Amino acid sequence: MTERSGTSNVPSGFHSLLKCAHDLADLSGPVTLKHFRKPVAVDNKDGKGGFDPVTVADRGAERIIVKELKRRFADHGVIGEEYGTYKGTSRYNWVLDPIDGTRSFIIGSPIWGTLIGLLDGETPLLGLMDQPYTGERFWSEQKAAFSSNRFGKKTKLKTRACAELKHAILTTTHPDLFAAGAQQAVLASLKSRVRMARYGTDCYGYCMLASGFIDLVVEPDLKIYDIAPLIPIIEKAGGVVTTWDGKPASRGGDIIAAGDARIHAAVLKLIAKA
Amino acid sequence: MTERSGTSNVPSGFHSLLKCAHDLADLSGPVTLKHFRKPVAVDNKDGKGGFDPVTVADRGAERIIVKELKRRFADHGVIGEEYGTYKGTSRYNWVLDPIDGTRSFIIGSPIWGTLIGLLDGETPLLGLMDQPYTGERFWSEQKAAFSSNRFGKKTKLKTRACAELKHAILTTTHPDLFAAGAQQAVLASLKSRVRMARYGTDCYGYCMLASGFIDLVVEPDLKIYDIAPLIPIIEKAGGVVTTWDGKPASRGGDIIAAGDARIHAAVLKLIAKA
Repeated sequence: MTERSGTSNVPSGFHSLLKCAHDLADLSGPVTLKHFRKPVAVDNKDGKGGFDPVTVADRGAERIIVKELKRRFADHGVIGEEYGTYKGTSRYNWVLDPIDGTRSFIIGSPIWGTLIGLLDGETPLLGLMDQPYTGERFWSEQKAAFSSNRFGKKTKLKTRACAELKHAILTTTHPDLFAAGAQQAVLASLKSRVRMARYGTDCYGYCMLASGFIDLVVEPDLKIYDIAPLIPIIEKAGGVVTTWDGKPASRGGDIIAAGDARIHAAVLKLIAKA
Repeated sequence: MTERSGTSNVPSGFHSLLKCAHDLADLSGPVTLKHFRKPVAVDNKDGKGGFDPVTVADRGAERIIVKELKRRFADHGVIGEEYGTYKGTSRYNWVLDPIDGTRSFIIGSPIWGTLIGLLDGETPLLGLMDQPYTGERFWSEQKAAFSSNRFGKKTKLKTRACAELKHAILTTTHPDLFAAGAQQAVLASLKSRVRMARYGTDCYGYCMLASGFIDLVVEPDLKIYDIAPLIPIIEKAGGVVTTWDGKPASRGGDIIAAGDARIHAAVLKLIAKA
């Protein structure tokens, strides 16, 4: 991918867009952290609408990110988890999930992240996952993806080779998210073939796949903001990510990510049979 | 609990024992960290004995901890995950799990911890959980339990009130660890009654219960080193932890931990009926 200022009427070379993504994460981190691991009473939380994990942190972080985006790139659009879609006039749309893993967040687990992605038309151009409590960040650049941590180490990400499902480590956020019937059949079929299945991963699963520690992430019914920011991280690290029927993942849906194209193909085949 | 030097022939007041636990965590952290998030090829890992997540890190950390313990308290015994039991001549036995959450460790997730506990006879006297990647530590003192994190904050832990199962957040490490039949029936019964169930927690589940973010952790078949170091942290924070038949948890077994005695009693009743 080459530098492009495109049809947008703002200076939007890749580097300034990437810098913006990092700056947005720097802004949102303190907002989400302020609310992480703060005591919450539980007895008055199951109102009529059932359990709702959306927190003040989620909305606060999206507000500060959107405000900064409008200041920098007034013509860009925004697709956010909390406040929905804001249409811009350029071909760029930022895709935001201030807290991916709200259920992890509310149980005090650090397995959540702030997702910031940018679509150029329908193409994910860059993506970033920030975990302010652990001090970790994962992001894509033009030719590769990287992570950094609180020890200051910047690491180039690379998925690992895994030729066969029997060697694969599979993760998914929660088995109950697979609907009874066909989706549960897919999960059962996968679980019976892989080396190990692990739950509770949210966006961490995709970042650990990009980092070469997980071979397969399979999840149903993702929203655009759950996956679009992670696609460039996965792909620039050497992975493959599509819907269960092999189509682009950039609008969400039922998603497969694989570190090795061979097991991606094996899963597509297995799903087609299920 | 008062200061005691007991029948041991070394100066073993509570403070020197607690300081030792912190020092052991300081020693083990760099050893486990050296191996965390290091690339591993997967294709040659499913040998005859099936998948074995025990890592070099686990053994290296236990070795360095045991060496230091023998140097400081030659008469104390050790019950370790990796190298088994070393009998001392005093009433003190250290209980060690260098990496609780080996499966989290191998997928690159920071949801694992180094567990260091001390039994005085059959009574858990103190416990500590250290997470060197995130920079978190949870431990018990004589009258309370505490946590600290990389931001330097020391926080007194307190479980939260939760009077009824319908309000409770339940966690367990993996649903497949419950054996088919009675154990799965217990899990299904609990899941149908609580507000939310979440997987993938290992020792973090108990520390988050002590911190007031989880109401209930229920797990089958724990070893002594999976739970003994966590008991004083849970109890000094106001929680209750026993086996499924209401007996002391200090030797492991099927374990219930609850932040509120009322839901602990409710779960015991539910299990007795299952």
